[in-house]
Amino acid sequence: MDHQHWLKEAVNMAVENVRSGHGGPFAAIIVQNGEVIGRGVNEVTTKNDPTAHAEIQAIRQACERLETSRLAGALLYASGEPCSMCTAAIYWAGIEAVYVACSTKELLQAGYPDGLAHYRRDRQKPPEEWSIPFQTIPVEGYLEPFHLWKKLNAD
Amino acid sequence: MDHQHWLKEAVNMAVENVRSGHGGPFAAIIVQNGEVIGRGVNEVTTKNDPTAHAEIQAIRQACERLETSRLAGALLYASGEPCSMCTAAIYWAGIEAVYVACSTKELLQAGYPDGLAHYRRDRQKPPEEWSIPFQTIPVEGYLEPFHLWKKLNAD
Repeated sequence: MDHQHWLKEAVNMAVENVRSGHGGPFAAIIVQNGEVIGRGVNEVTTKNDPTAHAEIQAIRQACERLETSRLAGALLYASGEPCSMCTAAIYWAGIEAVYVACSTKELLQAGYPDGLAHYRRDRQKPPEEWSIPFQTIPVEGYLEPFHLWKKLNAD
Repeated sequence: MDHQHWLKEAVNMAVENVRSGHGGPFAAIIVQNGEVIGRGVNEVTTKNDPTAHAEIQAIRQACERLETSRLAGALLYASGEPCSMCTAAIYWAGIEAVYVACSTKELLQAGYPDGLAHYRRDRQKPPEEWSIPFQTIPVEGYLEPFHLWKKLNAD
């Protein structure tokens, strides 16, 4: 199977996800050694879970099935370009390569709303100007979790 | 309750998560109108889920409980600075503000491994040099999901 095949299938899944009223227009398929190991569609509203993006769902399903948290050699096919959350999740999962049917640019041009506009704008600004403030307050013992982790995980 | 109180509690949860062998040294608490609405600890290895970071778990729990995908007015307390995946999830969830006990810089100085080093390095480079290649292949009908979504969601 070539990349076009899996991307076309992901696009069809995304169309069906919208048609059925199940969620947003996104789907993802993960393939390893020619076999599908995970599939996901956008289920943010259905599941009341803002992290239930297609790529995250596919990664979670593949990892659960294979009983691992790292998907070495796996290829991810996404109907739409992964957002920043999903892109970082792809790095955490150790996916090998990503194939995308529709870029974020085209998706926005097609009239889809930009849910991460604030995020992207904030990342271009100094932290004190972010729309969601992040404040560091080093409370007593704040390094203990890491010191204990290091002690228990030392070679 | 002040910010220090919730951060100290998150740090204690993170210590306990390591001590019990349950997962990595991270915990998060979400508070809305003075009430805890979600808690999470790192369960990546226990759950075989690379997305099971403390912040994501806390967001998922809060949204499930409150039957919403948006946590307006909620404050997130994290024992360690949220990674890029969790930061974008915080934006998707519409969290109001984030308080952090330990910055990523200090966490790395304390000897914790940098799981997103490649991600951060790649984001400074042009796409063709990323360690995980992202390739766009506009297959037949790739805009259909968005056109259908727009048609069904038109005012």
